[in-house]
Amino acid sequence: MDIGGTAAAIRNGDRRALARAITLVESARADHRALAVALLAALGRAPFGDRQALRLGLSGTPGVGKSTFIEAFGMMLVDAGLRVAVLAVDPSSARSGGSILGDKTRMERLSRQPQAFIRPSPSQAQMGGVARRTREAVALCEAAGFDVILIETVGVGQSETMVAETCDLFVLLMAPAGGDELQGVKRGIMEMADLILVNKSDGDLLAAATRTCADYAGALNLLRHRPQDPPGFPKAMPVSAVTGAGLAQAWAEMQALADWRRAQGHWAARRAEQAAHWFGQEVRQGLLAALDREPARGLMGRLAAEVGQGAKTPEAAAAEMLAALGRG
Amino acid sequence: MDIGGTAAAIRNGDRRALARAITLVESARADHRALAVALLAALGRAPFGDRQALRLGLSGTPGVGKSTFIEAFGMMLVDAGLRVAVLAVDPSSARSGGSILGDKTRMERLSRQPQAFIRPSPSQAQMGGVARRTREAVALCEAAGFDVILIETVGVGQSETMVAETCDLFVLLMAPAGGDELQGVKRGIMEMADLILVNKSDGDLLAAATRTCADYAGALNLLRHRPQDPPGFPKAMPVSAVTGAGLAQAWAEMQALADWRRAQGHWAARRAEQAAHWFGQEVRQGLLAALDREPARGLMGRLAAEVGQGAKTPEAAAAEMLAALGRG
Repeated sequence: MDIGGTAAAIRNGDRRALARAITLVESARADHRALAVALLAALGRAPFGDRQALRLGLSGTPGVGKSTFIEAFGMMLVDAGLRVAVLAVDPSSARSGGSILGDKTRMERLSRQPQAFIRPSPSQAQMGGVARRTREAVALCEAAGFDVILIETVGVGQSETMVAETCDLFVLLMAPAGGDELQGVKRGIMEMADLILVNKSDGDLLAAATRTCADYAGALNLLRHRPQDPPGFPKAMPVSAVTGAGLAQAWAEMQALADWRRAQGHWAARRAEQAAHWFGQEVRQGLLAALDREPARGLMGRLAAEVGQGAKTPEAAAAEMLAALGRG
Repeated sequence: MDIGGTAAAIRNGDRRALARAITLVESARADHRALAVALLAALGRAPFGDRQALRLGLSGTPGVGKSTFIEAFGMMLVDAGLRVAVLAVDPSSARSGGSILGDKTRMERLSRQPQAFIRPSPSQAQMGGVARRTREAVALCEAAGFDVILIETVGVGQSETMVAETCDLFVLLMAPAGGDELQGVKRGIMEMADLILVNKSDGDLLAAATRTCADYAGALNLLRHRPQDPPGFPKAMPVSAVTGAGLAQAWAEMQALADWRRAQGHWAARRAEQAAHWFGQEVRQGLLAALDREPARGLMGRLAAEVGQGAKTPEAAAAEMLAALGRG
């Protein structure tokens, strides 16, 4: 692989080069890994790079209309002249074998736009791999000059953490619901949200959506104020991905929030924190990778068997393994 | 510390020696760690050791009456001539600063019995530390000859996993509840339970407890059969920690289940699996411990700062750190 040429192609907006580079960062092969590290370095990835997209995390339970929302919201941004990338994070796909965004037909119009790039989640990634793949795919899309990167996750605990570690803004998409269901929303995810959008604010559900929105606004008011929020944030708003109602207002609020955070220094501080966190994760993953290589892998298996048979205590076997790795 | 003497004292049932040894395994100091590993090896800890207690995990949400249950159940066992140890697992204590079982007065009678040993959770442990401390404290109590080791956890996801990795049987203590609340019980924890005990089956709540018990029995019937269960298990039973009703029957069921698993080989297989799992955890923790020692710790801090300032990419800094650790 020609690292310099690939980096140049990505920076010039070559979508095929970008897609190949994402495949590269998703690979578990050691030679691919070395190329990925070199490519990311060549692209000058850094928290204060010259190209900063708005990294927008989007979460919501299945059935809330995430795909329809992304299609409508993404088309609105594209029509406004912006370049939009959509990435999916699905930690569960490793087990289920399925993947969200597995089918671009769910976003048929958006996927045909030359200004848009849609990337489904890989189906075979491990958890550590998912976090790394997500942040590196985001970095590649950012280097490719996208203005907005939408990071879609299913409503699972760990993917939400990843979004917090990767995004500038976090949007929670909710369906109209009764007060009881609202209580079922985990406090942790509410505390992460910058904006709660109540979807399906149209037709028969309009009244219910308006009430739900007021309920969420009330719940958000009860949360502790976060220093990275201007007055009025986090806030809840009604939208309809079907009619398009509220989408422009939601985008205006996102931009206002992003502008405020940039001006106050919160934006840069968060990106710096995220980058430092990724560094720590990379180091830990690199240390543990020693166990997956031969001959360490074989010794691990033999010692585990001895421990299982009661021939050695877990602690003594671990000490033996660490000594073999030069970590006595 | 005299390892041989301490090991002998523990095996002779010296409770002060046991308490000091648990304090030792809870310590994060490297010299304490080396002593702890030596002590565990001297005690001949192994999945098929000559002294095998019944390791009984007990979980339930706050307010369900866990302390009262442990007091009454533990006293019944002590009165039957058995030696009982009670350990608390509380992963949240690291954050909250609080600890469950922080006050032995919650089990006043049991704590005064010479045949009983009650150990609160430490207040400052980290998550990895909690898992290690729990399994090692269990191993120490087992070596000390306790017949039953009760491992109490709060109803938090990760502590439940630890119980699964440490216990022979898992008991879920529940309160009488309506059908709606039953649906709120996480499927994952239901699937782990060997026995569901519906507490407070007395006085005004007797009828509600009987209904709740039937509801749980129905829910358990819908779960997939596990090979480690004899016919009729997992099962739901009513108990009252206040009147003592059902406690003897619950203990009889636990013994019957344990006997069946021993006879079928499931008991030994599970202990072997748990020991192999602990070995893997110890190795991973040992590798990562390299980052906490100087000069690695200082280099980590400097590189993280450079990454945060944008001077290096996270990947490049991680490669530099791994090279410094001899893991290029």
